[in-house]
Amino acid sequence: MVVLFYSDIDDPRPWRAALARALPELDFRVWPDIGRPEEIDYALVWKPPGGMLASLPRLKAILSLGAGVDHLFLDAQLPAGVPITRMVDAGLAPQMSEYAMYGVLHFHRCMDRYAIMQREGLWKQLPAIPPAQRTIGVMGLGVLGGDFACKAQVMGFHVIGWSRRAHGLEGVGEYHGADGLAAFLAATQILVNFLPLTPETHGILDRALFARLPRGAFLVNLARGGHLVEDDLVAALDSGQLGGAMLDVFVQEPLPEGHAFWRHPRIVVTPHIAGLAIAELMVEQVVDNIMRLERGETPTGLVDRRRGY
Amino acid sequence: MVVLFYSDIDDPRPWRAALARALPELDFRVWPDIGRPEEIDYALVWKPPGGMLASLPRLKAILSLGAGVDHLFLDAQLPAGVPITRMVDAGLAPQMSEYAMYGVLHFHRCMDRYAIMQREGLWKQLPAIPPAQRTIGVMGLGVLGGDFACKAQVMGFHVIGWSRRAHGLEGVGEYHGADGLAAFLAATQILVNFLPLTPETHGILDRALFARLPRGAFLVNLARGGHLVEDDLVAALDSGQLGGAMLDVFVQEPLPEGHAFWRHPRIVVTPHIAGLAIAELMVEQVVDNIMRLERGETPTGLVDRRRGY
Repeated sequence: MVVLFYSDIDDPRPWRAALARALPELDFRVWPDIGRPEEIDYALVWKPPGGMLASLPRLKAILSLGAGVDHLFLDAQLPAGVPITRMVDAGLAPQMSEYAMYGVLHFHRCMDRYAIMQREGLWKQLPAIPPAQRTIGVMGLGVLGGDFACKAQVMGFHVIGWSRRAHGLEGVGEYHGADGLAAFLAATQILVNFLPLTPETHGILDRALFARLPRGAFLVNLARGGHLVEDDLVAALDSGQLGGAMLDVFVQEPLPEGHAFWRHPRIVVTPHIAGLAIAELMVEQVVDNIMRLERGETPTGLVDRRRGY
Repeated sequence: MVVLFYSDIDDPRPWRAALARALPELDFRVWPDIGRPEEIDYALVWKPPGGMLASLPRLKAILSLGAGVDHLFLDAQLPAGVPITRMVDAGLAPQMSEYAMYGVLHFHRCMDRYAIMQREGLWKQLPAIPPAQRTIGVMGLGVLGGDFACKAQVMGFHVIGWSRRAHGLEGVGEYHGADGLAAFLAATQILVNFLPLTPETHGILDRALFARLPRGAFLVNLARGGHLVEDDLVAALDSGQLGGAMLDVFVQEPLPEGHAFWRHPRIVVTPHIAGLAIAELMVEQVVDNIMRLERGETPTGLVDRRRGY
């Protein structure tokens, strides 16, 4: 069994070590040292170069190194008929929830303003709002968004969610579809985006959406840069419609030098670190899926190509 | 029934309104307009001036506006024999846990370093540690520390605690006394202080304690400034023994102009906001305690003067 690894950011070495422990007979190859293309059974990839996957004639499955697969659909030559899987939790849920919680607390507890006050040597207490009076709006209630929605409730927040279908999360007021979006946004004070990036959600965080939030609302985006219309965010912040944003993902990554986000006083920039691929935590799902596929069973996180995730 | 209110930071107006709703017959007076001192039944206070309480000859009880009562023991004329109560949760636990969670996540997720990288326009991912591999050490496992210890476990952290007596918190490795302290510190990567300030805990966060933590550990202090030997903290940070600190409380408050903490690159300063007195959330305990005391029953949060909290 041969696995080909490609990632523009992940180190292959921990993957090689973890897979060797779990499947000693596995032949682990790292692009571009692929050997004979027809020997490759599985591609374990993040943002593969266009055409790379199409060059592997006997590929049994494409395993995304992340929870998202939008990076694969950018490849116009993505082989049809080859199953695609994405990571389901696999160590991402705790990390993503940590990031979302930090972003929510940053704005909920005015830490952005206290940081400025520290630089100015200013001692001044700002009014506190109990968490039960703060409504967190979570877009996307799958494994990752759902995990955060539960943890935010444990912290005492009022949590509502917007998603394609009902998830039945206890205590979470759920909204769906275009009809539900306006009511969801009107009630949201801190918006946290966990949506998958698909043609339907591309550019969803735009001027029209921001205008439906209460004035001074905050945004935490840890999903994809393509969800956000970046110029609209700057305009909403500068007009006061939004009070601040914490962003982990961007239209272009790395965020280009000189981009307005780097030095905007109301934007926190992090370099796509909300959910890092930790090989030791993901390898179990990868191994389990390879075994399932070898036995002809349905793998975990099988992607519906029409739905886009 | 007459209640005298004194606080150097809290606005009496929401207290007057909330108490009027709950006990319409109550006569609410704000220092220094106390009327006749012998009419005062209850003192609802935060950091009262020395001698103020002693000037009230028929005082039935002293109700602290916070979870701590160390501010009362600073008064050499504190009347003996008058019961003292402190706030038990009363809206403080969610706030304190939010602050502690923010501080823990700040260091756990390298947000201090990412903030510097944003200012420099630098895009670089730092290694991630799963929360299960991060040990949070909580000093003080009462209502507040215990609430945080549980929430930190929900977030996936490994949580241990050090306290005077066993609290039986599920999943929390508990350490006690001087013997337990060394083992507790050796295992702690992020130390969070929730202790009451007493003669035994004064100055406990000192050079000797920092030296027992693993190199590069972090400190979150949201209890009292008197727990910390401030010069020792700066030395520990500058030597690299500690990696960073988030501080909400200080020996002198407001933190004096020109104090080294204001501009230290590894210290986050906030102006004693971890647990703000929110009248609407505290008034229930105050009213309940006044009713209990009037009926001769034991109030909630009755302070043991020998123990100091």
